[in-house]
Amino acid sequence: MKKKIAILPGDGIGREIASGAASALEAVGKRFGHEFELEYANIGGAAIDSDGTPLPDSTLALAKSSDAILLGAVGGPKWDSLPSAERPERGLLAIRKELGLFANLRPIPSFQKLVQSSPLKPEIAGNVNMLIVRELTGGLYFGKPSERRGENNDVVVDTLLYTREEIERIVVKAFEFAKSRDGRLTSVDKANVLESSRMWREIVNEKAADYPEVTVDHMYVDAAAMKLISSPGQFDVIVTENLFGDILSDEASMITGSLGMLPSASLSESGLGLYEPVHGSAPDIAGQNKANPLAMILSTALMLKYSLHLREEGEAIERAVQSVLNDGFCTPDLQMEGSTIVGTDQMIKLVTERIADDVPASADEVVYM
Amino acid sequence: MKKKIAILPGDGIGREIASGAASALEAVGKRFGHEFELEYANIGGAAIDSDGTPLPDSTLALAKSSDAILLGAVGGPKWDSLPSAERPERGLLAIRKELGLFANLRPIPSFQKLVQSSPLKPEIAGNVNMLIVRELTGGLYFGKPSERRGENNDVVVDTLLYTREEIERIVVKAFEFAKSRDGRLTSVDKANVLESSRMWREIVNEKAADYPEVTVDHMYVDAAAMKLISSPGQFDVIVTENLFGDILSDEASMITGSLGMLPSASLSESGLGLYEPVHGSAPDIAGQNKANPLAMILSTALMLKYSLHLREEGEAIERAVQSVLNDGFCTPDLQMEGSTIVGTDQMIKLVTERIADDVPASADEVVYM
Ligand SMILES: [Mg+2]
Ligand SMILES: [Mg+2]
Repeated sequence: MKKKIAILPGDGIGREIASGAASALEAVGKRFGHEFELEYANIGGAAIDSDGTPLPDSTLALAKSSDAILLGAVGGPKWDSLPSAERPERGLLAIRKELGLFANLRPIPSFQKLVQSSPLKPEIAGNVNMLIVRELTGGLYFGKPSERRGENNDVVVDTLLYTREEIERIVVKAFEFAKSRDGRLTSVDKANVLESSRMWREIVNEKAADYPEVTVDHMYVDAAAMKLISSPGQFDVIVTENLFGDILSDEASMITGSLGMLPSASLSESGLGLYEPVHGSAPDIAGQNKANPLAMILSTALMLKYSLHLREEGEAIERAVQSVLNDGFCTPDLQMEGSTIVGTDQMIKLVTERIADDVPASADEVVYM
Repeated sequence: MKKKIAILPGDGIGREIASGAASALEAVGKRFGHEFELEYANIGGAAIDSDGTPLPDSTLALAKSSDAILLGAVGGPKWDSLPSAERPERGLLAIRKELGLFANLRPIPSFQKLVQSSPLKPEIAGNVNMLIVRELTGGLYFGKPSERRGENNDVVVDTLLYTREEIERIVVKAFEFAKSRDGRLTSVDKANVLESSRMWREIVNEKAADYPEVTVDHMYVDAAAMKLISSPGQFDVIVTENLFGDILSDEASMITGSLGMLPSASLSESGLGLYEPVHGSAPDIAGQNKANPLAMILSTALMLKYSLHLREEGEAIERAVQSVLNDGFCTPDLQMEGSTIVGTDQMIKLVTERIADDVPASADEVVYM
């Protein structure tokens, strides 16, 4: 298989971790006989410096002509004094919008070696493998009107707006993921109060008829915020609207014990997807060979599975990461007992070697996302 | 001091735990020389049975003529088949609305004896004493329009609406609480996206000028959802709008380790307040002498402090509860190592005796809410 991958390293540690994605893809290509053509472009602060805008047309064109997109991270103090409409983060918002990336996927795995780093007790944090599917382009963050009103501007309004089509496409996406995983879908809403949630719930129940193999339950968002702490192991796939998903996915990101391990994906209707770590550009440690490349490498695994439908290849990466952790290697951000701390380069090398060799982690310890 | 207190036991375990409130008040009255005139009325399912409506006029009139209101809990399977507009829970919504209870207060304490019951690690859960101040009558749950639109009703809209005055009064309330506590206020919003949050943040910054003794910081709601798990001990007072407060206060309620320990208060501008446990009516254990009366008793302590300005009296209750826990007594819902399990009646008796005697808990173990 030959595929063109756009790599947008961005700022801060983005460049270092992007090289982890490239190395992982090279190893996968060699082992499985694929050709990944990697093309690089700037986004965020780097693009402001090179092109005067956080999302240059050339970057967008590359993204559109690629089979999938890997993004490092954007932002840094160098650009903090710019007006908010011109900042690096705008590049990220703009590419999401231009590509119609409506489905944000946040897998929350447990890594046995990291379970002590979780704020949750090990017996609660140790058995988690959920996928949060968040609607990313509608709802309260985008609805109009969003304005001040009244004579003295003393009334303020934001609007939570969804079309049936917007809800249907994210719900269908979530059912598809639930079907390919453990067959359990939790739809989160506030249907006891919000009309939008009542329509959301109706649509989930309608679509459920097309997925008899998926068990559906409905949960209010406040109850979900409790259950994510008290019994996160109960969830398989969670689907919810934009604002609820923003809050719950960040809450859930604490369970694993390190943001440095969490990948994410944002998908369009065409299947084109952008893959990026959950963490930011960490300018304070950029260029010091300290950054944890594993979230970026695991984002690459998601890309292989979700956009290129190369499941075995993606799982080879996940197994390699697990194997390296199991052998006690970690970057300085991870708190593992009795571990060997390695730099970014060394961590990339370790994972890449194990992709090439298919060094297996012991089967019950691998979390496939 | 002579005060009239309305007690609305409600349904399920409501009656049993309300008797704990009455006993605690009697003990406080005797010791401190106050007279509490207790008047009882029905609400919820009990009121549907007696008067055909979940909030009878007589109950509302009693509430309005009282100095404060204690409520047990409402709801049960007996009334589950009623249309949603006639259910017991409507009684609660109606009384909140009729009394203008715009400020919902949720203290989140740590009890050393219960720290093992928290899903969080003891070192994280053990040092928490925050107060969440939630706006309760505005925002997305109440704004109009809230409707379906379009030819096929295929667009749905909810409206997040606040007036300046609504935001100001809750923000001022929160500053007052911060001033009387540890002097730290965290305002939670989503000002990077929502216009309502930008106005909220402006108002918080304006009011901050009137409270130089209070340190203010602003936090996005998704970040707050993370910090409540990773470092809940950092918070003193949190203030936020209705929906964010709904999600965050329920999330935070997991920290203590038992819903059976959590009181709440809802205040009006006049200072009239309704006090109730966070937990529900637990019809499955009603009438079995198993219910935990401590959240109700601690709600009574809040009432003394917040509505009647009897701080010493409220703290005497809090100390008595702490002392009983420290001596290893608990109801069946609590998981304490090496504990003596007692029934509702016995727990009420234990706490009441210690209020009367002012048996002190060791000072560093008492959490004053
Ligand atoms: Mg977020
Ligand atoms: Mg709630």
